[in-house]
Amino acid sequence: MSHSIIFDTDPGVDDAQAIAIALRHPEIELLGMTTTYGNVDVETATHNALLLSELAERDIPVAQGAAGPMVKPRHPAPAHIHGANGLGNIELPGVKGAKDPRCAAQFIVDTVNAHPGEVTLVAVGPVGNLAAALQLDPTLTEKVRQVVIMGGSIREGGNVTPVAEANMFNDPHAARRVLTAGWPLTLVGLDVTHRCVLSQAHMARIEAGQGALGKVLAGSYAFYRDFYREFLGIDGCCPHDSCALAWLLRPELFTTAPGHLSVVTDGIAEGQTLFAPEGRGFIQERWSQTPLAEVCLEVDGEAVVEWITETLS
Amino acid sequence: MSHSIIFDTDPGVDDAQAIAIALRHPEIELLGMTTTYGNVDVETATHNALLLSELAERDIPVAQGAAGPMVKPRHPAPAHIHGANGLGNIELPGVKGAKDPRCAAQFIVDTVNAHPGEVTLVAVGPVGNLAAALQLDPTLTEKVRQVVIMGGSIREGGNVTPVAEANMFNDPHAARRVLTAGWPLTLVGLDVTHRCVLSQAHMARIEAGQGALGKVLAGSYAFYRDFYREFLGIDGCCPHDSCALAWLLRPELFTTAPGHLSVVTDGIAEGQTLFAPEGRGFIQERWSQTPLAEVCLEVDGEAVVEWITETLS
Repeated sequence: MSHSIIFDTDPGVDDAQAIAIALRHPEIELLGMTTTYGNVDVETATHNALLLSELAERDIPVAQGAAGPMVKPRHPAPAHIHGANGLGNIELPGVKGAKDPRCAAQFIVDTVNAHPGEVTLVAVGPVGNLAAALQLDPTLTEKVRQVVIMGGSIREGGNVTPVAEANMFNDPHAARRVLTAGWPLTLVGLDVTHRCVLSQAHMARIEAGQGALGKVLAGSYAFYRDFYREFLGIDGCCPHDSCALAWLLRPELFTTAPGHLSVVTDGIAEGQTLFAPEGRGFIQERWSQTPLAEVCLEVDGEAVVEWITETLS
Repeated sequence: MSHSIIFDTDPGVDDAQAIAIALRHPEIELLGMTTTYGNVDVETATHNALLLSELAERDIPVAQGAAGPMVKPRHPAPAHIHGANGLGNIELPGVKGAKDPRCAAQFIVDTVNAHPGEVTLVAVGPVGNLAAALQLDPTLTEKVRQVVIMGGSIREGGNVTPVAEANMFNDPHAARRVLTAGWPLTLVGLDVTHRCVLSQAHMARIEAGQGALGKVLAGSYAFYRDFYREFLGIDGCCPHDSCALAWLLRPELFTTAPGHLSVVTDGIAEGQTLFAPEGRGFIQERWSQTPLAEVCLEVDGEAVVEWITETLS
């Protein structure tokens, strides 16, 4: 079964790995990329999306979107994780192509309406572009095939706060809009991405298999891995964004559960995703009034990493 | 090593089990009980504390405290869990003794100051009495030996909301005051209490070993177990409050971690405990500015249940 996707992204080292999969996997038709701030400024995100596409010798539309959150001030980009250029501060070639004239939200609206029931939105950064698309056309909820979000954390705790994952934290209002929109949504969060560790040996296989693109993936990986070693004591790195694609193509490697999502927008827990499992009674109804969504709770991490590596070898 | 404790409680079926341990265990000197609303009204809590003490043929001071939260309106008592009388709606004898003339907070202040460095506070309900005691005498933080709180949840999710445990949810402002007071505190939350299941067979041994008190423990257990079966699909019940005493007397059965606690007071995550592990960097400092506390993360649940049963057999 093949998937026609729009990939919403803020590349970002692990975004780049996922983009490579979206560009290479025979069962993915990449209709376009939409960009957002997050790991980097949105202009850098757009540059990197165009660059990765060109390195793979593909011509993919790239539409630029949100430069910051919907409501709150922007947090600084984490240059110590992804590098100031989003790709580990390695030297990068210029890009030849230009971005799509439309903004990200309009690109999403146009593309979904051109292929009703066929398009899957895969978002791996702060989800402001999806929220903006819903603002332009609320009927998208009935027209997308699926929505896959890399973000959030159910039981695992957060990565930027004790409870909040970075993408949700970076725009909690957009996250609340998108996670409670009532479309067929799956959340691929830290509960599973933290179980997947891409080692140097995996990356060596990827580098060997991906030509010019492989050089960039491997060079940026080295920088990203330093962050994991220094701050988290892990030898390797978590391929967060690739996990969203792994779920889409290899769902049998994941355990999911249905329930009701909420996102905390203010206070010390801001950016936290709350998950009320379907059918579980709580003393008040307020946590289970949002539409049902699916969350990933467990994964065969080794199999996912092998799938990523195999796809790119 | 023996422990001189004040037991702050809202009995409550699982409270009654823990009170029985506090009354019976040779290494516990029970200096007094202080009562709060929570599982029941505070008057009912006081009645039950006096009753359980008399059934064990002990004369223990019982000082009544908070009838509701410090700031927020009170949530209704969960009569479907503990029964309207807090002890599974079984028929109960009257009590002969009278409560202490002092309020709970004053009793705590007086007792701790009379035995500086010797008294351990064990609180298994909403923690308003401890917050009120700190309001009367902030130097308690340097005079208690230890503080053990049954409440909160780090990774396990909540029981009254997807993220909040009942005791923290019932008075989040008091919880914030108490969990961030900077005294030697251990949080015994759902991460460990949900790993402990007291079965009918365990309770039969307890009933046989505890005379008149055993009849009340077994009778109230039956009601409580119905709740667990119907709402949680568990055959047995979690002896939440006894786990606080198990940690005090058998800490080797638990795995704990040091870190910084916060409590969410408002919004959809209200009542949630946030835990920032010591030394773990987050993008802002605000989650790691509270004093260090210890939280229980794992437990040998079977061994704890056996310890409870053995103590009461």
